[in-house]
Amino acid sequence: MYKIDLNCDLGESFGPYQLVNQEEILKYVTSANVACGFHSGDPSVIRETVQLALKHGVKIGAHPGLPDLVGFGRREMKISPQEAYDMVVYQIGALQGVLSTFNEKLQHVKPHGALYNMAAKDKALAEAIAKAIYDISPSLILFGLSESELTKAGEKVGLPTAHEVFADRTYQADGSLTSRLQKDALITDTNLSINQVIKMVKESKALSQQNTEVNLRAHTVCLHGDGAHAIMFARKIKETLEQKNIAVSSVQNWKDLI
Amino acid sequence: MYKIDLNCDLGESFGPYQLVNQEEILKYVTSANVACGFHSGDPSVIRETVQLALKHGVKIGAHPGLPDLVGFGRREMKISPQEAYDMVVYQIGALQGVLSTFNEKLQHVKPHGALYNMAAKDKALAEAIAKAIYDISPSLILFGLSESELTKAGEKVGLPTAHEVFADRTYQADGSLTSRLQKDALITDTNLSINQVIKMVKESKALSQQNTEVNLRAHTVCLHGDGAHAIMFARKIKETLEQKNIAVSSVQNWKDLI
Amino acid sequence: MYKIDLNCDLGESFGPYQLVNQEEILKYVTSANVACGFHSGDPSVIRETVQLALKHGVKIGAHPGLPDLVGFGRREMKISPQEAYDMVVYQIGALQGVLSTFNEKLQHVKPHGALYNMAAKDKALAEAIAKAIYDISPSLILFGLSESELTKAGEKVGLPTAHEVFADRTYQADGSLTSRLQKDALITDTNLSINQVIKMVKESKALSQQNTEVNLRAHTVCLHGDGAHAIMFARKIKETLEQKNIAVSSVQNWKDLI
Amino acid sequence: MYKIDLNCDLGESFGPYQLVNQEEILKYVTSANVACGFHSGDPSVIRETVQLALKHGVKIGAHPGLPDLVGFGRREMKISPQEAYDMVVYQIGALQGVLSTFNEKLQHVKPHGALYNMAAKDKALAEAIAKAIYDISPSLILFGLSESELTKAGEKVGLPTAHEVFADRTYQADGSLTSRLQKDALITDTNLSINQVIKMVKESKALSQQNTEVNLRAHTVCLHGDGAHAIMFARKIKETLEQKNIAVSSVQNWKDLI
Repeated sequence: MYKIDLNCDLGESFGPYQLVNQEEILKYVTSANVACGFHSGDPSVIRETVQLALKHGVKIGAHPGLPDLVGFGRREMKISPQEAYDMVVYQIGALQGVLSTFNEKLQHVKPHGALYNMAAKDKALAEAIAKAIYDISPSLILFGLSESELTKAGEKVGLPTAHEVFADRTYQADGSLTSRLQKDALITDTNLSINQVIKMVKESKALSQQNTEVNLRAHTVCLHGDGAHAIMFARKIKETLEQKNIAVSSVQNWKDLI
Repeated sequence: MYKIDLNCDLGESFGPYQLVNQEEILKYVTSANVACGFHSGDPSVIRETVQLALKHGVKIGAHPGLPDLVGFGRREMKISPQEAYDMVVYQIGALQGVLSTFNEKLQHVKPHGALYNMAAKDKALAEAIAKAIYDISPSLILFGLSESELTKAGEKVGLPTAHEVFADRTYQADGSLTSRLQKDALITDTNLSINQVIKMVKESKALSQQNTEVNLRAHTVCLHGDGAHAIMFARKIKETLEQKNIAVSSVQNWKDLI
Repeated sequence: MYKIDLNCDLGESFGPYQLVNQEEILKYVTSANVACGFHSGDPSVIRETVQLALKHGVKIGAHPGLPDLVGFGRREMKISPQEAYDMVVYQIGALQGVLSTFNEKLQHVKPHGALYNMAAKDKALAEAIAKAIYDISPSLILFGLSESELTKAGEKVGLPTAHEVFADRTYQADGSLTSRLQKDALITDTNLSINQVIKMVKESKALSQQNTEVNLRAHTVCLHGDGAHAIMFARKIKETLEQKNIAVSSVQNWKDLI
Repeated sequence: MYKIDLNCDLGESFGPYQLVNQEEILKYVTSANVACGFHSGDPSVIRETVQLALKHGVKIGAHPGLPDLVGFGRREMKISPQEAYDMVVYQIGALQGVLSTFNEKLQHVKPHGALYNMAAKDKALAEAIAKAIYDISPSLILFGLSESELTKAGEKVGLPTAHEVFADRTYQADGSLTSRLQKDALITDTNLSINQVIKMVKESKALSQQNTEVNLRAHTVCLHGDGAHAIMFARKIKETLEQKNIAVSSVQNWKDLI
């Protein structure tokens, strides 16, 4: 039977500020990527988010980012592989600390924003991040852009590695995501989005903007939690996938991945 | 046989800045309190410091502080017990993350600066900190000012608790340290300092500025690592204690504490 | 004729986060206190906020706070008068820098949150803040809690000083605000709030919770910009004050204050 | 008569940390670039640094950097021109605020580290920075890498612009500095360094590593303040330049630049 994990970024609050109603999206996802304080999140926000995810039975992963609160970790920074290693270890550790007060363990690690994008293309950075995760615990699952330098690095170092795909982004013939600077970067039609996911899950293929088929693996789909449309989409995709006999379940339960 | 642990703050560097030559003081202490990034330290500094302490066989503890880099965690902040709990959990977790990449575990936790001083007097804060440590791991050893609210909270929650004494500070009749605002706060004579420690270890007593005897427990002595005098003093006190048949060893090796 | 200034905190956004719809409240206030980056605000948020306030013809003041983004400047910190002086100078300068790109000048300075409250009671801190403002420019207007150490310090150093009163807070017999920890701290009835303001403006008196009359001066009223109720209240109080022949205008236009 | 300005980065301290003995280097330079709190510096450090520079009669400039304390502003960040504009305005304003408490004005602005290097090559970024400076005050002098995008942007917007050269760095045939990744990036021989500066001042030319002559303008030379060698070099170059009839004086005194 086919299966898929649905993940969403969480804990993207800071001090008095909140971006998202977290309760809603937690009804539909199976894995939550929790911000660790570098691009968003603070110690109290993190605890509250972990508490909420556990209440909903959603598996928790670390979502380490660049040290850039103002830029929300979305601005590329020229960091060395060693710096990437160190900041990923620190952030995973901090979140694991919070989880240990609930007698829980992290399921996965998904780098955030610019760190995720840089690691998808930069082999040295990807390997430093994969090694950081491995050195903390070889059973942590790495989430990376499907068929990118990051998933390659995860597999090379021996981590269980989940290939991530996007429902609302188009793909290029080389397997990369269409840049957000292009007009056709986003898929706004809900049905097209869901069909793209179904094709990726069942055929391990996506149709590129050049009308060629791209090979990829689809273990987890990135969903969003901000806004009414995002919540509606999350509910819809979960329902539709289940109707199409694709089990929606956290990667942690998959024997073949781990 | 009498025994004592010697501890020192470490990892108090940040980005391009360094306060202390850490290699020197590591020759004499048995426990190192490593800054966790809130009052000092950054992910790379922390890794380097942990590496250095391990190389010297010195046991490592977390040294969580207030989120105040400019004030070095020395300015009191009115935080709630919940905020204290959360920031201590986060910082211990981050440091434990770094240690886990070396397959090592934390020995102890000693709050830093204003957090240490506030917790010595404020019962609610002390209990929140003790609970944070306990919830991460009940085998972590809490370092607190001898016979303070912090050590009481540690013992109450069931943590192994090490009472900390000071070689270079005078005591008041009520067992508190003489305020640094007073002229007689510091002991500058090396022999007087060492004699105070010996008396504290052997008799569990210190002579107060009011010439009365104060009851306390002396499990660990706070040493400093900054400057030539501090290093010389560390060597001298270690030598003298050993000559006086007081074993200098890390608290982790003590059966009665743990 | 009676007159009053209505002020509101603005620019309390940070990176991707926003607390308030600023356009709405700007229709009703005459002075805006703009966060300067220490408790909230970042360089881009500040520029956008200044632009918006200028568009609405609202006078702009600096709203310097404690360096505590997570705590939003609401947690007291034990800073020295010199540190207060330095951080106030820095923040006023930064905001004045932004204003100078619009060929505008600051009207006033109102410390934020814990800094405001600490300065209301602590004479040394109040004088350091007043001196910081005076040293930048003696024509800046200081906003402080009516009849507090802060307004006293402003008057002593020679700054035009605006006494601030609150519409939605009750007063104690000694002129202080009732602590928020008390049940009767807040006035939730709109008419009672407005009547308190009218009495303060026309009689320079407020009725305390002990039923005594408290002497104070009312130059500016603190309004809030968050939420539908706050906006409605702002509109209502502005309308009512004008109906009662109390001119609502920025303190900068007042000959007697400056 | 030939003339040259000697500049040095200052105020690169933070909280309890200090990099440089500032008193020494202030004896030899004519312009000081003061860190503004984003890559280094805090409000108290800035005030102390300004005080010290004024005592030595050294002209003061703002040294705005990227918001990266851990990386000391040396790691490139992908910021937009608008973000660059905003952060430069904020930082200049903050420093100008401190200067105004001494009744002084800024002489110049020199971007720091990665911001300086990025602006040397990126036209849009350079123009945003030049505009930020101009919008604060058209009489501020922009310091930029000689014949770079930054000096071009300064001249285009109408700022007095000082071309900066380096004594200890070699040049490429295209006028750029040899990358620090190359072996021959640095000139370690004191005499060669000084001769390069003399040639740049008198002939507006440097000899490239390809043995060709590079055209540039030399208004100000970047010196360093860290370490005994740097101080010795500063003294030596000042003495030698004066012996060779090159007046060492702050750019502010130059009629032709302003």
